[in-house]
Amino acid sequence: MTKPIIGVMGPGEGATPEHMAMAEELGRLIAQAGWTTLSGGRNAGVMAAVNRGARDAGGLTVGILPDIERSGISPNVDIPIITGMGSARNNINVLSSDVVIACGAGPGTASEISLAIKAGKHIVLLALSPAAKIYFQELGGPLVSVAASPRNAIDLCEQLLKEPQQTA
Amino acid sequence: MTKPIIGVMGPGEGATPEHMAMAEELGRLIAQAGWTTLSGGRNAGVMAAVNRGARDAGGLTVGILPDIERSGISPNVDIPIITGMGSARNNINVLSSDVVIACGAGPGTASEISLAIKAGKHIVLLALSPAAKIYFQELGGPLVSVAASPRNAIDLCEQLLKEPQQTA
Amino acid sequence: MTKPIIGVMGPGEGATPEHMAMAEELGRLIAQAGWTTLSGGRNAGVMAAVNRGARDAGGLTVGILPDIERSGISPNVDIPIITGMGSARNNINVLSSDVVIACGAGPGTASEISLAIKAGKHIVLLALSPAAKIYFQELGGPLVSVAASPRNAIDLCEQLLKEPQQTA
Amino acid sequence: MTKPIIGVMGPGEGATPEHMAMAEELGRLIAQAGWTTLSGGRNAGVMAAVNRGARDAGGLTVGILPDIERSGISPNVDIPIITGMGSARNNINVLSSDVVIACGAGPGTASEISLAIKAGKHIVLLALSPAAKIYFQELGGPLVSVAASPRNAIDLCEQLLKEPQQTA
Repeated sequence: MTKPIIGVMGPGEGATPEHMAMAEELGRLIAQAGWTTLSGGRNAGVMAAVNRGARDAGGLTVGILPDIERSGISPNVDIPIITGMGSARNNINVLSSDVVIACGAGPGTASEISLAIKAGKHIVLLALSPAAKIYFQELGGPLVSVAASPRNAIDLCEQLLKEPQQTA
Repeated sequence: MTKPIIGVMGPGEGATPEHMAMAEELGRLIAQAGWTTLSGGRNAGVMAAVNRGARDAGGLTVGILPDIERSGISPNVDIPIITGMGSARNNINVLSSDVVIACGAGPGTASEISLAIKAGKHIVLLALSPAAKIYFQELGGPLVSVAASPRNAIDLCEQLLKEPQQTA
Repeated sequence: MTKPIIGVMGPGEGATPEHMAMAEELGRLIAQAGWTTLSGGRNAGVMAAVNRGARDAGGLTVGILPDIERSGISPNVDIPIITGMGSARNNINVLSSDVVIACGAGPGTASEISLAIKAGKHIVLLALSPAAKIYFQELGGPLVSVAASPRNAIDLCEQLLKEPQQTA
Repeated sequence: MTKPIIGVMGPGEGATPEHMAMAEELGRLIAQAGWTTLSGGRNAGVMAAVNRGARDAGGLTVGILPDIERSGISPNVDIPIITGMGSARNNINVLSSDVVIACGAGPGTASEISLAIKAGKHIVLLALSPAAKIYFQELGGPLVSVAASPRNAIDLCEQLLKEPQQTA
């Protein structure tokens, strides 16, 4: 049986300390729920933090890397997938996740939220700007949930995993 | 010499008549300026309309198709690029454009606006919702311009083509 | 620490019973060595067999799927990566593997052998036709090894994993 | 009406003077036939030569580039498609071509020949090694033709363009 895969997307170099603290807690909670953590895999910002949290709690971590080699990879990625296709890999991130959580959002994360909606995936927004929350709820309707905390995001994932998956 | 390539992105099946009229005018103006039109290539909505306008005015049209075969292609695409990679091709759309115009925006277009900002490309927004305009200006800062009409969008492209390109 | 990842490539629907028996043994031996098995992930031929063997021996299995959804996936894949990009995903298969084993070869596998050589990856050929063995040794020189059996292929992997990785 | 697109694949830095002379002649003949030339687009080897030949004869040239930016592009590419996805773009090269010609073959070209066969595309081999010709004819059966000269390759394309396209 494949375990649920939760994709956690968020800024790399542009992440704030608050984003990183939340991402680390998300990783820990995903691992404690028995789920697999999927991220963009780089050793920066939200990606580094979520993998650290998941690894600390004994979880399995998958990283979908944009580059052609392993340099720059988070040391807490168990399964590195090397795509060599830059931001085009963002679509793989969302297609491979049962539910996607956005923890903060720069342009790369915004593309992942949009691609998740396009693919009919449920997406949980955490720590996004007011303008981002308004826009993505308009764009995605019932596919988009807003979480108040990492704990709340995980509770939402738990509910969403029980719903039948839409397909693209 | 390669001519400037203007990418026109917008909804397919979800396009309104207003989006399509604007897209057709964009295609015509791009062709009249001597530029090449690039789109997602499908025979629907903004893609179909911009190619029709460009072709009518004697312009060259490139379509970057998501599917593995030519079915569903706009009949006014001169150069069909068959990617077979679904929405991951959205990144190719923006990387291959000198300037990107979004004419209306569903989830696919929203991913293209985000990926354009990520890649450091200039993007012109036309006929987006108020929430979309507020959000993408927040996300992209000086890379994002808002146009009031197709004519205005083309004037903005003309200015932006004179600026040095940023690289990703 | 990331465990070594061994990519096992081979025919799907075109696999012979001999290819499938060898693939199942490869999966078992990879798992027993403590390595991760990576494949194209579909529930057919060599992909199905290698995952079955690896799972039976308690190993971890990663499947890089060509389609946009999970239908058609091998039931023994632990980590499904959904690419939605058809055969373009073959490059991800080889970039993500520390060593690639080809177990039989149709056109898809031939592209993976070629892409592995292009990326400077070591590749072990098992159960290929005489013409294929001659050609790929000509093409890849020291990157290409020929194995006489699954056991021999695994011994070759063990040696190759000790060599410094070339980069593309 | 979309003109036929002939993909010409071949080595970059590893091309011999003979490969480059043949590629230049291929480009010229493709242009004279009124077809569009598609290549990997880089300013090296067969790619540079085929674009030079096609441009000299007034033809249209499309280049599918592997990198994220335009540096390294052949100056004779009219339509540059920037993929940023490295060798994964090889699949786009073959899917976008009505017929593929391989003019010489390093590992990248070998992957394109294999992917063309996988996609059910006709492929013409020119100036390949004896081992390569034997192997790819075994792999592709009736999809694979061997040409004795650029002129012969173009004559084969003319015949193949009249056959109904197989789909992948």
